[in-house]
Amino acid sequence: MTATLATKEAPESAESGIRALIENWAAAVRSADVDRIMAFYADDVIAYDAIAQLQFVGKPAYRDHWAFCMSMCGGMIFDPGDITASADGDVGFAHCLIRCGGVGPNGQEQASWMRMSAGYRRLAGQWKIAHEHFSAPFDMESGKALFELTP
Amino acid sequence: MTATLATKEAPESAESGIRALIENWAAAVRSADVDRIMAFYADDVIAYDAIAQLQFVGKPAYRDHWAFCMSMCGGMIFDPGDITASADGDVGFAHCLIRCGGVGPNGQEQASWMRMSAGYRRLAGQWKIAHEHFSAPFDMESGKALFELTP
Repeated sequence: MTATLATKEAPESAESGIRALIENWAAAVRSADVDRIMAFYADDVIAYDAIAQLQFVGKPAYRDHWAFCMSMCGGMIFDPGDITASADGDVGFAHCLIRCGGVGPNGQEQASWMRMSAGYRRLAGQWKIAHEHFSAPFDMESGKALFELTP
Repeated sequence: MTATLATKEAPESAESGIRALIENWAAAVRSADVDRIMAFYADDVIAYDAIAQLQFVGKPAYRDHWAFCMSMCGGMIFDPGDITASADGDVGFAHCLIRCGGVGPNGQEQASWMRMSAGYRRLAGQWKIAHEHFSAPFDMESGKALFELTP
């Protein structure tokens, strides 16, 4: 423990910084612009995505995965629900359910609710996503992801 | 922004507090003692578990779910791998892969790697789990959870 004369930001202000980041990040995902999406991540991000792999370690690996995802989804739906955020100093975390999907060739929406959790660090004055976890729960009996659940 | 003369704990010390919590929490899960497990959570915990539901809101709902999980698993394997933890002041987050499973009736281990992310708040001097996210990734084609992946 050391006594310091610190200029400390109120936790509420740090939390609004994180909420703003999430809204801007979700808008970037809807734009399907991979450069714009990647600007939100720390270089050493470790991500647990809903599909394919246990984890993606570092920005280049996660960028490749985002590019793959964007190549499969057009006219994306990516709408965060209520966000719970906590922050103190230069560290924070947040989570929310996100309605994800797209519009099929028949013009019909296909979307499901997913879960998102993230850890944030403020680096050189800017909040960055240091960790991200995206998933759908699965059914114990069939082992299949549950896409029909609603909050 | 307000200037305060604060006695600030070093982030490394807060991070070790969180690492210790994770080791103790994992030991509690291995003991299958639901009271011991629940002592680690904040009252207003919101959890995204790997199975069954999108979310569990509040300690009573999550307790019921833990009791259900423990009733199904005996001789649990629950071994966290490398933990990444960040903390500042009274807020932190951490994540790791965890090898989860049990020993079947034939005496053979059945285990798979899952992903765990959590958000922590220090309440009345004690770190508590405010948010937890557990999952397995799924295969895009089959929609099935992937239990064979290794780090």
